[in-house]
Amino acid sequence: MDQITVRAPATVSNVVCGFDCLGFALTDPYDLITLRKSTRHGVTVLHLDNFGLPTDPTKNVAGVALQAFLDRTGPDHGFEIEITKHIKPGSGIGSSAASAAGAVVGANIMFGEPFSKTELAELAMAGEMLASGSRHADNLAPCIYGGFVLVRSSDPLDIVELTFPSLFATIIHPQIEIKTSQARALLPSHVPLSDAVRNWSNLGAFVAGLASGDHALLGRSMVDTIIEPVRSSLIPRCDEVKAAGLAAGALGGGISGSGPSMFMLSSSRQIADTVASAIGNVYSGTELDFNIYVSEISSEGVRLV
Amino acid sequence: MDQITVRAPATVSNVVCGFDCLGFALTDPYDLITLRKSTRHGVTVLHLDNFGLPTDPTKNVAGVALQAFLDRTGPDHGFEIEITKHIKPGSGIGSSAASAAGAVVGANIMFGEPFSKTELAELAMAGEMLASGSRHADNLAPCIYGGFVLVRSSDPLDIVELTFPSLFATIIHPQIEIKTSQARALLPSHVPLSDAVRNWSNLGAFVAGLASGDHALLGRSMVDTIIEPVRSSLIPRCDEVKAAGLAAGALGGGISGSGPSMFMLSSSRQIADTVASAIGNVYSGTELDFNIYVSEISSEGVRLV
Repeated sequence: MDQITVRAPATVSNVVCGFDCLGFALTDPYDLITLRKSTRHGVTVLHLDNFGLPTDPTKNVAGVALQAFLDRTGPDHGFEIEITKHIKPGSGIGSSAASAAGAVVGANIMFGEPFSKTELAELAMAGEMLASGSRHADNLAPCIYGGFVLVRSSDPLDIVELTFPSLFATIIHPQIEIKTSQARALLPSHVPLSDAVRNWSNLGAFVAGLASGDHALLGRSMVDTIIEPVRSSLIPRCDEVKAAGLAAGALGGGISGSGPSMFMLSSSRQIADTVASAIGNVYSGTELDFNIYVSEISSEGVRLV
Repeated sequence: MDQITVRAPATVSNVVCGFDCLGFALTDPYDLITLRKSTRHGVTVLHLDNFGLPTDPTKNVAGVALQAFLDRTGPDHGFEIEITKHIKPGSGIGSSAASAAGAVVGANIMFGEPFSKTELAELAMAGEMLASGSRHADNLAPCIYGGFVLVRSSDPLDIVELTFPSLFATIIHPQIEIKTSQARALLPSHVPLSDAVRNWSNLGAFVAGLASGDHALLGRSMVDTIIEPVRSSLIPRCDEVKAAGLAAGALGGGISGSGPSMFMLSSSRQIADTVASAIGNVYSGTELDFNIYVSEISSEGVRLV
């Protein structure tokens, strides 16, 4: 196999109650990543996008992830990579993770799958380190595994695939830029123990609700008194979007990753569509541009096209 | 029905990674609680134990829980209650919860079950308030529901029954006294966000491991960098007990509630028995008296005898 194309989905991390450990994969939007074996050593990056992403492989998240792959498999070959980005960088729905995960999963398929999914997430983490300066896999893991995924530990990496019921996500992406580093700088270094207990009680309940398919419990558990209260200040009308989504029948929701995208979870596509209209209305009277996606939570991660 | 006897099991709360929200019910030890309807109003407490527990119903955990029950059902009757305590007060395996939960569940059965399990836990909380000064249900809830239970919120009370695989607990109770208030005073008011994230990642993974029956994941998830490091100083040879239990094949374990009891979880009764010998050896060379219990994790809470 000298050339393949994979599809790498957008992902939602944090999911309100699972800061830095929980995420899920969408069906739409996604990036398309084409890899070609090359006799030239190292990685050559070609971009088919309007985002001005770097083509220097040492400054490109897919480039450094692929280089990490090559460093493990041996340096007697190289890759040419072509990325068609549909997931806008900086949107908060795992754009860098899709590039990095898509690249290493594609390379793995080309070479007869020498690496496990966990090893691929480890390799792709080089890309996330470049993008955000921190070692985190809560977008990478759902992008690679699909579905709902919990990262129990990021060093060493320990990824837990979660059972989950049929669920639909509505994503709204207001076109403002929030740098992950800026969103991280707002976080407190210490938190009240009582808030931490509330948070882990909710995450435990959320995981139980996923396992039992208890939609109402999922809704009650999407509560966060630590991260969202400080980050919501970065997103215009954040509370209004959430209130409109809930009023339209969503189970719950909040900020996706470090924002600016927000997500709402619903028990059916019909409700997710109604939620899309409702939360769109919050911005449609403003000058703010926005995109909306409605997507089933997919149990498929990166896959061959 | 003018008289009934119920059996109220001991419980393990916190379970290392679920401080203040997670607990499970044992089969052994248990308290026996006999209730009689009485024409005399209010609660009359009779004790069949050597622990010197108060018989003044306003100072007795079962007494105040029953009074809360009577306050809801109407004051035209009363109860006589006789408690045969096998769960030593102050042992850290839910002695006060067993008294309070047993009393209200028994009363509920006598009156045709007017209250749900959650309402009974709410009523029994009056007993826990008396015993420890704090509103917590992480022993009460598993005592009433049986099995593994997560308290998502204690105000309002929201209790989540968890799916769990066959598991066995080995409990060792060194005969020292630790007051819950003393153990609580050690706790930090604030914790590093990074520790909190690690804790909720582990609790999420533990709940997932219970749901999928993944014993190895349960073992990896019983980690706590916040509570146990400070509380273990109150328990002689705490780390040695844990190490001996792990070496004997236990999946994991730690302090039960606020101690001094410790628990280890195992995948079979045979391993749990081996663990019992191993952790007993840690204390058997010392002057410290101790009790050991081996118990299946029971899906039965308080029940009629």
